[in-house]
Amino acid sequence: MKFISANSSYSNADVVLFGAPYDSTTSFRPGTRFGPAAMRSESFGIETYSPYQDRDLEDICVHDAGDLELPFGAPDRALDMIEAQAASILADGKTPVLLGGEHLVTLGAVRAAAKRFPDLRILHFDAHADLREDYLGVTLSHACVIRRCHDLLGDGRIWQFGIRSGTREEFAFMREGHVVTEPFTLNTLPQLSFPAGTPVYLTVDLDVLDPSEFPGTGTPEAGGVRFTELLAALRDVLTRFRVIAIDNVELSPPLDPTGRSTALACKLLREELLLAARSTGHLS
Amino acid sequence: MKFISANSSYSNADVVLFGAPYDSTTSFRPGTRFGPAAMRSESFGIETYSPYQDRDLEDICVHDAGDLELPFGAPDRALDMIEAQAASILADGKTPVLLGGEHLVTLGAVRAAAKRFPDLRILHFDAHADLREDYLGVTLSHACVIRRCHDLLGDGRIWQFGIRSGTREEFAFMREGHVVTEPFTLNTLPQLSFPAGTPVYLTVDLDVLDPSEFPGTGTPEAGGVRFTELLAALRDVLTRFRVIAIDNVELSPPLDPTGRSTALACKLLREELLLAARSTGHLS
Amino acid sequence: MKFISANSSYSNADVVLFGAPYDSTTSFRPGTRFGPAAMRSESFGIETYSPYQDRDLEDICVHDAGDLELPFGAPDRALDMIEAQAASILADGKTPVLLGGEHLVTLGAVRAAAKRFPDLRILHFDAHADLREDYLGVTLSHACVIRRCHDLLGDGRIWQFGIRSGTREEFAFMREGHVVTEPFTLNTLPQLSFPAGTPVYLTVDLDVLDPSEFPGTGTPEAGGVRFTELLAALRDVLTRFRVIAIDNVELSPPLDPTGRSTALACKLLREELLLAARSTGHLS
Amino acid sequence: MKFISANSSYSNADVVLFGAPYDSTTSFRPGTRFGPAAMRSESFGIETYSPYQDRDLEDICVHDAGDLELPFGAPDRALDMIEAQAASILADGKTPVLLGGEHLVTLGAVRAAAKRFPDLRILHFDAHADLREDYLGVTLSHACVIRRCHDLLGDGRIWQFGIRSGTREEFAFMREGHVVTEPFTLNTLPQLSFPAGTPVYLTVDLDVLDPSEFPGTGTPEAGGVRFTELLAALRDVLTRFRVIAIDNVELSPPLDPTGRSTALACKLLREELLLAARSTGHLS
Amino acid sequence: MKFISANSSYSNADVVLFGAPYDSTTSFRPGTRFGPAAMRSESFGIETYSPYQDRDLEDICVHDAGDLELPFGAPDRALDMIEAQAASILADGKTPVLLGGEHLVTLGAVRAAAKRFPDLRILHFDAHADLREDYLGVTLSHACVIRRCHDLLGDGRIWQFGIRSGTREEFAFMREGHVVTEPFTLNTLPQLSFPAGTPVYLTVDLDVLDPSEFPGTGTPEAGGVRFTELLAALRDVLTRFRVIAIDNVELSPPLDPTGRSTALACKLLREELLLAARSTGHLS
Amino acid sequence: MKFISANSSYSNADVVLFGAPYDSTTSFRPGTRFGPAAMRSESFGIETYSPYQDRDLEDICVHDAGDLELPFGAPDRALDMIEAQAASILADGKTPVLLGGEHLVTLGAVRAAAKRFPDLRILHFDAHADLREDYLGVTLSHACVIRRCHDLLGDGRIWQFGIRSGTREEFAFMREGHVVTEPFTLNTLPQLSFPAGTPVYLTVDLDVLDPSEFPGTGTPEAGGVRFTELLAALRDVLTRFRVIAIDNVELSPPLDPTGRSTALACKLLREELLLAARSTGHLS
Repeated sequence: MKFISANSSYSNADVVLFGAPYDSTTSFRPGTRFGPAAMRSESFGIETYSPYQDRDLEDICVHDAGDLELPFGAPDRALDMIEAQAASILADGKTPVLLGGEHLVTLGAVRAAAKRFPDLRILHFDAHADLREDYLGVTLSHACVIRRCHDLLGDGRIWQFGIRSGTREEFAFMREGHVVTEPFTLNTLPQLSFPAGTPVYLTVDLDVLDPSEFPGTGTPEAGGVRFTELLAALRDVLTRFRVIAIDNVELSPPLDPTGRSTALACKLLREELLLAARSTGHLS
Repeated sequence: MKFISANSSYSNADVVLFGAPYDSTTSFRPGTRFGPAAMRSESFGIETYSPYQDRDLEDICVHDAGDLELPFGAPDRALDMIEAQAASILADGKTPVLLGGEHLVTLGAVRAAAKRFPDLRILHFDAHADLREDYLGVTLSHACVIRRCHDLLGDGRIWQFGIRSGTREEFAFMREGHVVTEPFTLNTLPQLSFPAGTPVYLTVDLDVLDPSEFPGTGTPEAGGVRFTELLAALRDVLTRFRVIAIDNVELSPPLDPTGRSTALACKLLREELLLAARSTGHLS
Repeated sequence: MKFISANSSYSNADVVLFGAPYDSTTSFRPGTRFGPAAMRSESFGIETYSPYQDRDLEDICVHDAGDLELPFGAPDRALDMIEAQAASILADGKTPVLLGGEHLVTLGAVRAAAKRFPDLRILHFDAHADLREDYLGVTLSHACVIRRCHDLLGDGRIWQFGIRSGTREEFAFMREGHVVTEPFTLNTLPQLSFPAGTPVYLTVDLDVLDPSEFPGTGTPEAGGVRFTELLAALRDVLTRFRVIAIDNVELSPPLDPTGRSTALACKLLREELLLAARSTGHLS
Repeated sequence: MKFISANSSYSNADVVLFGAPYDSTTSFRPGTRFGPAAMRSESFGIETYSPYQDRDLEDICVHDAGDLELPFGAPDRALDMIEAQAASILADGKTPVLLGGEHLVTLGAVRAAAKRFPDLRILHFDAHADLREDYLGVTLSHACVIRRCHDLLGDGRIWQFGIRSGTREEFAFMREGHVVTEPFTLNTLPQLSFPAGTPVYLTVDLDVLDPSEFPGTGTPEAGGVRFTELLAALRDVLTRFRVIAIDNVELSPPLDPTGRSTALACKLLREELLLAARSTGHLS
Repeated sequence: MKFISANSSYSNADVVLFGAPYDSTTSFRPGTRFGPAAMRSESFGIETYSPYQDRDLEDICVHDAGDLELPFGAPDRALDMIEAQAASILADGKTPVLLGGEHLVTLGAVRAAAKRFPDLRILHFDAHADLREDYLGVTLSHACVIRRCHDLLGDGRIWQFGIRSGTREEFAFMREGHVVTEPFTLNTLPQLSFPAGTPVYLTVDLDVLDPSEFPGTGTPEAGGVRFTELLAALRDVLTRFRVIAIDNVELSPPLDPTGRSTALACKLLREELLLAARSTGHLS
Repeated sequence: MKFISANSSYSNADVVLFGAPYDSTTSFRPGTRFGPAAMRSESFGIETYSPYQDRDLEDICVHDAGDLELPFGAPDRALDMIEAQAASILADGKTPVLLGGEHLVTLGAVRAAAKRFPDLRILHFDAHADLREDYLGVTLSHACVIRRCHDLLGDGRIWQFGIRSGTREEFAFMREGHVVTEPFTLNTLPQLSFPAGTPVYLTVDLDVLDPSEFPGTGTPEAGGVRFTELLAALRDVLTRFRVIAIDNVELSPPLDPTGRSTALACKLLREELLLAARSTGHLS
């Protein structure tokens, strides 16, 4: 089963979806491994047409490459597999869209992107800072993923929005200027700009949303942003910047028996796909 | 069991509740068949007094006529039974309040209303346009119900609010002017006016609400309106217009294990009943 | 997504799976529409190897033809589509294995089988008699499906096992000898025999199982048979008789949050497939 | 809403159902307060005809008197209300059938029965001994209910079956001969006899059943009896003895999302009603 | 298990947590008995650091005294035990923080506070007025708890915010001026002031929050306040007033399978603890 | 919180409980990480007294050492921590009882036991063979744990009971005689004997039970053994053999919303503890 309307062949597509159903380092409540399959299945409950953009998934070329079969209990090998997949898609001049899984999977895709685009920037939407040096001694953990990205890219390359949870050390790390963080909200995004052509990696931890709208995630944090705010922000990012890769992570379907978290994630992905295809100039 | 305080005899009542526990054409996640029974049972968890209106259900005369026993798998016969029930109530000069069930049940009540009130208007609150010509070849489907109403009434008779999902064809149908649609929000409602005495049918698909407040529905659509907005809108409608029939549809209790969707639906119905009785001038 | 290991091409396969995700006439608790998709997804939680038979799905040729897209609210058209699919598979000399959906779907496949095999017999495992003349006036209903089969085939063609629920009229119909029924248990199955080559349609309503082992069904009836009993019975049937078509119906995944009903259904299907392929003589 | 087919008037009925939706002293997992309403609602999912007895609820006269409205937090007053209701039914020469609620409600009905029938015996089916002198200092507790009955009736009047949980003190109380207890099973029931005409109160804590068949109860105890065993035992009791009152308690519907515990309880009640009516000689 | 980081000894602590896992008078949907244990367990899913206050639980001294073992079915004795615990903590010059349980538990702590601080004021955040004289004849009921507090303190001592449900009599009681009530919202809180040093008891019925953000409660009332609003209000209260005791009540974890209600309650408690410790001046 | 009545000091205890809440390699449905905490919490729903043995947990000395804090995503380090804990308990002459977690945790404890007792035997109750060489290339996986034990101990040291699922390769491994396996049932256990004093490690994967009795596990396999059968088998093992260490694994509480799987696991553990203490001769 493919995500609704993502029926292009690989060669025709300018956007390529793939899933990384992995949550082996999740320390609290697991379940994100079921995210990609749930999104594909539930995608048939939304329309292909977006009244927000007056545009239809049937107008664009998206390939759904399915899920990687990742080894639970071996995060380093899982990351290698994700990196290889993302690198291959980037090498073909296409935009990879990675569906998690836990946030750690982002690291695989960022490694691929950073090798291809040395001047890469990361835009990071999340409730949690994910800037720990380690978690119980483990450095390849969902709680450390943006710190690992910082290891790769260095200071001044990462912008965080919506952050409302972290340790004292993580917030100190922000204040020291290693990353640029707007806590709680997304308000400063419109002021952000990059030199033309700067490659941007967009990582969306869906728990940036308020748990009232998106309860299906392992560590819900009250006081989040609304769907309409996030949608506007992503539209801004995908319109103004050169986004070379996207991920949406931390949807955990079993934690939301109402199913609306998965439905929201599908709708958000539809909007991203319509924007990503438009921004790459392939269509209409 | 009757809805709380809906203990009037039929002859004394000016408002008559009845349920249409039917979801035979629901294509995605069923369960609205359990809506009316859940509302009656949960209604004892709310108060009969409304602090919004300083008014009490005990002051008004509502009859609960129970549920129709509708044949699953035979939508045409189910609609006939609903039409007969609504027609009988209208013929007695009372206001029918229909509890769904799926949105298709509206068609039965609209047929009855349109026969009695040839100049009928419909006010439609919903997340979905419900304007398809057919769904998998079926024309009597929840996804087509407003289109079937348009077949009956013609252009310029239907106003839609809150719509945020539909096919390209449905949105084109709106733009061609067959119906008047405010997408996403309810903001233009205060500007709407009708000639005095114009009969209005009010149909409320409860999924017009944001899924954060109303998760108990089959096709939750992120980005909806808030309870307080909808309450204000219904108050506006029931105060300014001559509403001759009401329905509330698409509550699916099994999809919301927290029970708050049913509780909200009960509270909204209480407010509607208090307004409907007031507007007809029967009481104190 | 295909059922595990059901990767043969249609032309190579001697057994062809297809789903009928339909529950439009279900009068009590719906959800069987989700049965086929859940079975495919959960099938990756069982092994392809059967220690009961020392045989592996990888040794046989099964094609998974996916699901029919059936119109909710139009049972007659849905049955036509199922009949056409089954007829096509039978015409190609292959064994159709239909996954419901509600029990009504059986009628489509039985129509196809009865046209091709005029001397058809039906073996029916179920908790419910399904022998009503109509249900609330509807004759194409899950509660009437075996009666409709009797309409087609006449007296003395249908054997029922495990029946423990029905109306007085249905049990009278049995006692009049129109069908042969063993209530409550499966004990007389070993005594049943047919002339060599008699074509047999095997319909398994999974609610014949005790609800303790199979809770995921709409109308659970206490006092049912155990998995090991049913497995032995199906082995007996598929070994001794010429089974020309099979269906497994009434799995309703949302009603069993533990997931074990779907897992059991997958395991039972694995055993049936291994037996059906063996009995047709295609493989080692 | 009444239990299915329990439509007799009070004066015509020989059996009178009433509910005691009370669980105020439940110390572990509450929810039995929802038992009677769930049984009435779900009773429409079973048939009125019993193939076990070839008899139909439509042949007998049962009145459903609805639920008492009992004050949470005031067990003594709740018991008074239950006693009054049971006494009134007994005084009219009818058989009360009490639906709990927690097991404490039994005490109200036993008080009424013991006043009317000084030589009363109690047959008690349960997983738990319920023989504590007090529970955290509270003597009117579900955990003490049979001890309170013993206070009323004295030694040698109570027979317990299926008991598999209790404190050392409770098991010592049994061994001292105050009550007659068969632990774990129901095997000695056929040997039990009473002088002709001895009045018997039958109390069935449904958790005597194995949790695999009846998970919907607050303190599930593995190793219980099967539905078919309990059904046979109740048939034995209701056929051989003069049962003057019955209760079924400790169904907690919210603890079983599959709904099969409620369905089983409805089926068991159907069988009891058919037997109770038969044994009183009112019908056919 | 203790609430995260509440590891101080009693003697070192200036704030003392204790639980009252009691819901014996809850008339609708029980489950708050599981609140304190769930909060302790889930507290390890939040951080000890607050980015709202730039302050960490590790900087303050909180003692978690565990849960009282309260007798179900004996509310008067339960209240005595709560009063004794609160009185003991107050006598030692510490701030008790009581975790419910149903709202009735507040009465025990208020009794202790009123004895020690005769000029006590109560600030009450809630969706429900809780001002009934009795509920089904029971005066010690969750629905009457603030009325019982009024019995103790008299007119002009109680301020209510966010109230959006009650009987006509309760709203009349407000309008007569016995208590000061802001219905629906918290807007007037900043205008409230007390003479310096006035002792304030803060009782937070968490159902003052909108059910979209806090579904885990027995009687969800649509139209509530947001987490960020409540957080700001509590910050205002705990900063400007001399709060001598706090309670948070009516979290019912089993009613919210997503777990986010408990997570929110933990986060809110963290903020309260950080503010309560700050206001008592013990730390940095 | 400790397991009920496991209040001995470490030095006084002859049995030491500890938890390994780990499921990082679980490939299908996770959740066993919540097993130990759920067991401790729910243990207060069972009695300390066993009517099966007429013996009480209050008579024996059990220490509950709490849970190890294991690093998700680093199975090798997790196993080291488990091994160290088990080795320390064994070195003190006490019996470790390990609560999983997934089955992989067994390997840590077996390593410790094998070092101390070179002639160790393993008795293994399970639905699954767990004899794979690797799973998706990972050798430290729940699906390989008994194969890893075989790597340590060699041929003829491991006895398996109840196995009803595995790959063809795993069943071939059994047939080659590397381990001794009774598939499906436990019938041959009474015939098993060892030389006096032979040290035995007892590992119980609770999914050996039928899913009807124990649904709370990630890969439920129909056709399992009953609680009473397993209880009798464990009693046999713990009475006849010198069991030097025990584990109970694969309870996944979130997969069983009825809670009865956890309750059963608590009851089984109570019986094991009473037997383990008796067999070591420490008490009465």
